[in-house]
Amino acid sequence: MLVRRVIQFAAAAAAVTSTLPLEPAFAQEAQSALPASLHQQLDRQYERVIADLIRITETPAPPFKEAERAALFADMLRDAGLADVSIDEEGNVIALRPGSAEGPVFVVSAHLDTVFPEDTPITVTRDGDRLMAPGIGDDSLGLASILAWVRLLEANRIATRQPVLFVGTVGEEGAGDLRGVRHLFTKGAWKDRIGAFLSIDGTDAGRVVHAAVGSRRYRLAFNGPGGHSYGAFGIVNPMAAMAGTVTGIYAIDVPGEPKTTYSASVVSGGTSVNAIPDRVVLEIDMRSGDPAELGKLEQGVLAAAEAAVAQENSSRSTRAGQISLEPELIGDRPAGATPVDHPLVQMAVSASQAAGFRGRLDDSSTDSNIPMSLGIPALTIGSGAGGGRSHSLAEYLAIDRDRFVAGLSVGLAVILAQTGGELP
Amino acid sequence: MLVRRVIQFAAAAAAVTSTLPLEPAFAQEAQSALPASLHQQLDRQYERVIADLIRITETPAPPFKEAERAALFADMLRDAGLADVSIDEEGNVIALRPGSAEGPVFVVSAHLDTVFPEDTPITVTRDGDRLMAPGIGDDSLGLASILAWVRLLEANRIATRQPVLFVGTVGEEGAGDLRGVRHLFTKGAWKDRIGAFLSIDGTDAGRVVHAAVGSRRYRLAFNGPGGHSYGAFGIVNPMAAMAGTVTGIYAIDVPGEPKTTYSASVVSGGTSVNAIPDRVVLEIDMRSGDPAELGKLEQGVLAAAEAAVAQENSSRSTRAGQISLEPELIGDRPAGATPVDHPLVQMAVSASQAAGFRGRLDDSSTDSNIPMSLGIPALTIGSGAGGGRSHSLAEYLAIDRDRFVAGLSVGLAVILAQTGGELP
Repeated sequence: MLVRRVIQFAAAAAAVTSTLPLEPAFAQEAQSALPASLHQQLDRQYERVIADLIRITETPAPPFKEAERAALFADMLRDAGLADVSIDEEGNVIALRPGSAEGPVFVVSAHLDTVFPEDTPITVTRDGDRLMAPGIGDDSLGLASILAWVRLLEANRIATRQPVLFVGTVGEEGAGDLRGVRHLFTKGAWKDRIGAFLSIDGTDAGRVVHAAVGSRRYRLAFNGPGGHSYGAFGIVNPMAAMAGTVTGIYAIDVPGEPKTTYSASVVSGGTSVNAIPDRVVLEIDMRSGDPAELGKLEQGVLAAAEAAVAQENSSRSTRAGQISLEPELIGDRPAGATPVDHPLVQMAVSASQAAGFRGRLDDSSTDSNIPMSLGIPALTIGSGAGGGRSHSLAEYLAIDRDRFVAGLSVGLAVILAQTGGELP
Repeated sequence: MLVRRVIQFAAAAAAVTSTLPLEPAFAQEAQSALPASLHQQLDRQYERVIADLIRITETPAPPFKEAERAALFADMLRDAGLADVSIDEEGNVIALRPGSAEGPVFVVSAHLDTVFPEDTPITVTRDGDRLMAPGIGDDSLGLASILAWVRLLEANRIATRQPVLFVGTVGEEGAGDLRGVRHLFTKGAWKDRIGAFLSIDGTDAGRVVHAAVGSRRYRLAFNGPGGHSYGAFGIVNPMAAMAGTVTGIYAIDVPGEPKTTYSASVVSGGTSVNAIPDRVVLEIDMRSGDPAELGKLEQGVLAAAEAAVAQENSSRSTRAGQISLEPELIGDRPAGATPVDHPLVQMAVSASQAAGFRGRLDDSSTDSNIPMSLGIPALTIGSGAGGGRSHSLAEYLAIDRDRFVAGLSVGLAVILAQTGGELP
């Protein structure tokens, strides 16, 4: 029987040709994107998923130091039944579940890293229907969801036509700059054999991220000779060059559609009120869904900085030295999108709605930026019943049982539909 | 015999009428501003002054925490022979040496505080003719010089007509904002009984600071709503208001004479490259020898900040809140001068030159700013043979014996000439 008949998003899932046993329309009391038997199995995993979540969350994975959590996740994937589990050169956990047919793999990933520094105390606490801890939703939930799905696939000996590559990526957050997924698609062993990509990220199974907002981030350092505020008055000041740069940037026109933005976000410089500083550093964030607009904006920002530096060098004395500009690219996430009418998008929207969620389309900056920018079909979806305060110490996750299990059902339904899952 | 015949700056010291015993012109091998017998006594104190210097320097006196060094200096003044030593409400050490006549006192001061924070390790080391430690010249040397002079005055039972008030001031540096000397002249017990003022500060006995550069310092905080760099794009950014302020300030014209200066010196704001900051803070230094020019500049700077804030509030959306300006005056040192032809200035120049130094006139911002701004004759002179790297951890002091003792002779000569020193 076709998966699509069961999980009610047949029309969109044109690519899906494989079969799962027919089930009656799923039970009213538990909305799901899955056949009732699978849903019930998922429900019976609830306590186990919570236990996995706590174990993963309490294993630290600060930026650039994901190794401990990676080792744990690899072991948990083996325990869940996968034989071929390894850690690649970049630190990503890679686990292959072979398909019944040859061909490109479907990647199902979640990210290992958190935004929290090494010394952040992380203990999961529970308050009613909330689990609380830094990183619990972003993205421990994604990792724990993958483990539950692997256990179900193994327990039911579900064969997929397409091989599935389960991946725990490093470096999704901030300065990590998508280094894990970037490695996967540009250098890793699987780089030319990935047919589609699904990232499980966030706590909202009602949000289907089909578009990647690209970003370019710069740290602009303005260096100068510096000197005594009174004795050296009249020499060039890097502060004035920085100010001219900010003013220049904020005069740039950007389109509202595709939404294109900039922000002069962080500044620092100088050590004492009685000294002309010798260095001022400014951090700029630029984003757009359109690579061409992003490139135009980037050129405008760099041109504004160069003009401000030239202006300062011609306005004041350079007898002690000139102002120089030292631009450093500190973030580079490419833009891209998977078309709204692509089956992967439509399946995800239908699965989300079948499970009782809104299934709304959105854009964001996630691991999917890399495949989307390469033209490889990709999506990011959440896997839960909600949560909040992501990236803060007050991060929490809603774990009301029915909604939580419904949230878990969405990703598995997308995997089955995409890869053509069949019972033996 | 008149002091002026001995120390060779008679013509300038018109106010000096008292006597010291006649001595032959001082020895060629040791230039001095003093009669040979006093110079020889000063020379015999060399090792003692070095020991005092080390003891004082290694007793910490960070900003606003001068109490330990103050207690030490008070004890050392008592040991040097003064009976009337106390610490005033502000923390200044005050020691009266009565004069033979009634009348206003002559203040001879050095400052207790250093620029170094509480946890700075301070150990004096010696490398040939250099003593090295943070604060050793600025202003441990001033304090040690005063102790040497008091011992000489006491040992020779020199009576001065005018009473001398020896003072160790707090808060000369940076944020201390001259609070010690300000208290002395505006609130302390002696505030209406000070006839003239001498500050011993710095390591160069060839520099006679007769003019006080005034300064006004502001911390300008620009506050706004802040938000996500992408999601909240379009709202006002305090960074842009700060930038407009810097640009506005650097368009202000100031006169070269009296020298008037400004500096945008320190800036900080923002926490993450992906967030519009909610606060940016800018520190501005303004200086002038002319109070009117300084006031005009201050108005210009504040007007530039207000205009930049208004500009930002009218350029971008204030739906989440407006940019507001929070100016804080963090430094206020009044300008002033003691006329070049004033006897105190001329005596100091002559004494410096008699001791083999250049005796050049200069302006600066020191404890003398306060009396100069009040029209009370005041000077700041150094008391050594040189040094360098003041305000840095690499600060050092030249202690080549002959030059060092010659440097010490200058201040004592000025005291004797100013107060009319007589042997019994």
